Amino acid sequence: MSIRSGIPTSAFWAGRPVVVTGGASFIGSHLADALVALGARVTVVDNLSSGLLENIADQVASGAITFHEADLRDAAATERVLAGADTVFHLAAAHGGRGYVDLHQAACAENLYLDGLVFRTALKSGVRKVVYASSGCIYPLHLQGDLSVDLLLTEDLAGPPYDADGMYGHAKLMGELTLRAMHQEYGLKAASCRYFTVYGPRGIENHAVIAMMARALIRQNPFEIWGDGTQVRNWTYVDDIVSGTILAGEHIDDGSAVNLGTTERITVLEAAHMICEMAGYQPEFAFRTDMPTGPVNRIASFERAADILGWQPGTLFAEGVRKTFDWYLAHRDPALLAQNLDQLLTERGVTPGGASTGDIAPDTVPAAV
Amino acid sequence: MSIRSGIPTSAFWAGRPVVVTGGASFIGSHLADALVALGARVTVVDNLSSGLLENIADQVASGAITFHEADLRDAAATERVLAGADTVFHLAAAHGGRGYVDLHQAACAENLYLDGLVFRTALKSGVRKVVYASSGCIYPLHLQGDLSVDLLLTEDLAGPPYDADGMYGHAKLMGELTLRAMHQEYGLKAASCRYFTVYGPRGIENHAVIAMMARALIRQNPFEIWGDGTQVRNWTYVDDIVSGTILAGEHIDDGSAVNLGTTERITVLEAAHMICEMAGYQPEFAFRTDMPTGPVNRIASFERAADILGWQPGTLFAEGVRKTFDWYLAHRDPALLAQNLDQLLTERGVTPGGASTGDIAPDTVPAAV
Ligand SMILES: NC(=O)c1ccc[n+]([C@@H]2O[C@H](COP(=O)([O-])OP(=O)(O)OC[C@H]3O[C@@H](n4cnc5c(N)ncnc54)[C@H](O)[C@@H]3O)[C@@H](O)[C@H]2O)c1
Ligand SMILES: NC(=O)c1ccc[n+]([C@@H]2O[C@H](COP(=O)([O-])OP(=O)(O)OC[C@H]3O[C@@H](n4cnc5c(N)ncnc54)[C@H](O)[C@@H]3O)[C@@H](O)[C@H]2O)c1
Repeated sequence: MSIRSGIPTSAFWAGRPVVVTGGASFIGSHLADALVALGARVTVVDNLSSGLLENIADQVASGAITFHEADLRDAAATERVLAGADTVFHLAAAHGGRGYVDLHQAACAENLYLDGLVFRTALKSGVRKVVYASSGCIYPLHLQGDLSVDLLLTEDLAGPPYDADGMYGHAKLMGELTLRAMHQEYGLKAASCRYFTVYGPRGIENHAVIAMMARALIRQNPFEIWGDGTQVRNWTYVDDIVSGTILAGEHIDDGSAVNLGTTERITVLEAAHMICEMAGYQPEFAFRTDMPTGPVNRIASFERAADILGWQPGTLFAEGVRKTFDWYLAHRDPALLAQNLDQLLTERGVTPGGASTGDIAPDTVPAAV
Repeated sequence: MSIRSGIPTSAFWAGRPVVVTGGASFIGSHLADALVALGARVTVVDNLSSGLLENIADQVASGAITFHEADLRDAAATERVLAGADTVFHLAAAHGGRGYVDLHQAACAENLYLDGLVFRTALKSGVRKVVYASSGCIYPLHLQGDLSVDLLLTEDLAGPPYDADGMYGHAKLMGELTLRAMHQEYGLKAASCRYFTVYGPRGIENHAVIAMMARALIRQNPFEIWGDGTQVRNWTYVDDIVSGTILAGEHIDDGSAVNLGTTERITVLEAAHMICEMAGYQPEFAFRTDMPTGPVNRIASFERAADILGWQPGTLFAEGVRKTFDWYLAHRDPALLAQNLDQLLTERGVTPGGASTGDIAPDTVPAAV
């Protein structure tokens, strides 16, 4: 039985100084918008390595968002931007879709360092609370390998033993464990939100739903699907992710984690069919079983979020994918997309037909070490 | 069949610029001494948070070791001290014995940040190789819970799934995984050495063997043993750890891990009896089952080290504990020891009867967060 409304309250956020790290990203920019609407004093910090300034440009221009272009792997910059913050929503990360996280383990390992620096700086600066963008990727892979099982991942299933999804998943897991320990031993307030495969407007091509829209738009033929298409996902609409994150910021203090994800079971092939139909395209499908797919069966339980936040997903996939497709059509040029689709699918910080937005790898890697 | 000699060669190390992080520590200072003896150009960096300047004072005075007192959580300092290094032996860590690592999870989590900073700086600075002080603590706890099993931990047993020993163990595991990924994706040469419960001269009281010597010396009555005394350990003499680490620096490049630990099975109670006998003390024992003990059964296989390094432990426990006791007797004053034994057992950076050597916790924690 829910004791919470499931609706973020401006009574809580009005006038509160908050920082959204990675706030120029897909999810980050929607979160920043929502916090502005609730009356918070919003600062965004992003190095634009994959985030896009255009996602927040209007709010920056109007003065509703204060934007710092800064690299959170720089201690002095991090100290500067966190000073005076009440709540830090920490979303900055070396992250991309499946293609990126599977093929860039070392870059994902840098999140251990990035998160560590943000958390220690938050503690030193007297930040009241850290809300952390964790992920379904922290759940044990061995629980997600069987399509015949109707398992809903509940928060307690995370382990030990741990079997997170590559370095990206391990780093998110360490972020969670660190925050829990910092709460218990130092009293820092914290909450970890485990996002499950998020989609929506401002999404980028290295995530499956947007990748499929890109393929449909450029009339890719045959239309490529990574894996055999039977993988099940619970794609979760970005607005739901945002409201859950803000509610966690209001109601969770003890460093515990909460799933934010739907229980809708959609296969990749079903999603591809829906998207091709919207695009008026009837392609042949080619199954690229050589490409990364992630676990075959990943679905969240949102029982804990319902219990402690009153949260439940408000957007069904059919509805969310429609909204996303409308946005996508209005924002992409098929000719540009076609120029570098492969790179868009597996890298980060790449724009259609254009140059990279920032540094693709977190660091300049010496040519020969 | 071994293809290696098991003996570090000055042909390899002579004139080579190396850095030992945490080189004022127990193990680090012995490693620095050995590298000096092999002709390397040795720089030690340590913030003296638990390391002691006296461990390296003679070598610093003679100019054989260049010492930098610096905090490796400071990016600029880290860049400065790693510049020009060929090989970095990375031993600096928030670490203590069982009492420390179990009771200070948040401080141990800081190693994620510290290691990340050292590794990324090494990469950027063009360091040729990183040799990492990992630990038996990375092995799954669920494999080490049964005394009736005669298991030798081989390197492949580390997982996934992972079940490392607290945040300390997790952080060491992440360090290993990061180095492996950096080798595979960026070409950085690396080796991880999994040390098993090390003892020897310059050891400190937060580790079991030295703790027992302290109890015997102050005639603690009853003589306290943490747990029921049946826990099995393979205490490994520091000289063996040092030679294995240097051999890994010569022969392992691919970021893989190697155990450095004996196969001698000694129980905590057996060790206590041996030490009390040496001290001429016949106490009652009191079993503190409320105190942290770690897993009951932890023993390494050193087959891989024998294969690829020609390494095998050269010092039996009876011999090593004798040498260590002689050193301990010559270096401790029972009256001073008695003044703060409890603190010595569970904290770091504490000296007998004295003030702390540095900052005990890695950070100043705000009183109220
Ligand atoms: N999209 C998903 O399905 C999903 C699922 C689970 C978790 N998450 C997490 O949500 C967060 C946002 O992800 P997203 O999908 O919206 O896009 P994203 O991955 O592009 O977001 C990361 C943002 O952080 C910024 N950034 C990266 N490194 C930085 C640094 N060193 N300094 C400053 N800024 C830096 C990037 O420019 C980007 O704006 C990430 O933490 C991600 O791991 C996303
Ligand atoms: N002693 C063991 O049984 C054992 C077992 C497995 C692994 N290890 C590892 O071996 C290494 C050495 O351990 P040890 O037992 O000799 O003593 P230790 O734990 O005292 O060594 C750590 C050293 O690092 C220094 N240090 C800590 N934080 C630092 C920072 N931020 N900047 C600079 N220096 C810093 C400390 O002053 C100390 O000299 C550690 O990495 C430890 O985790 C030890």
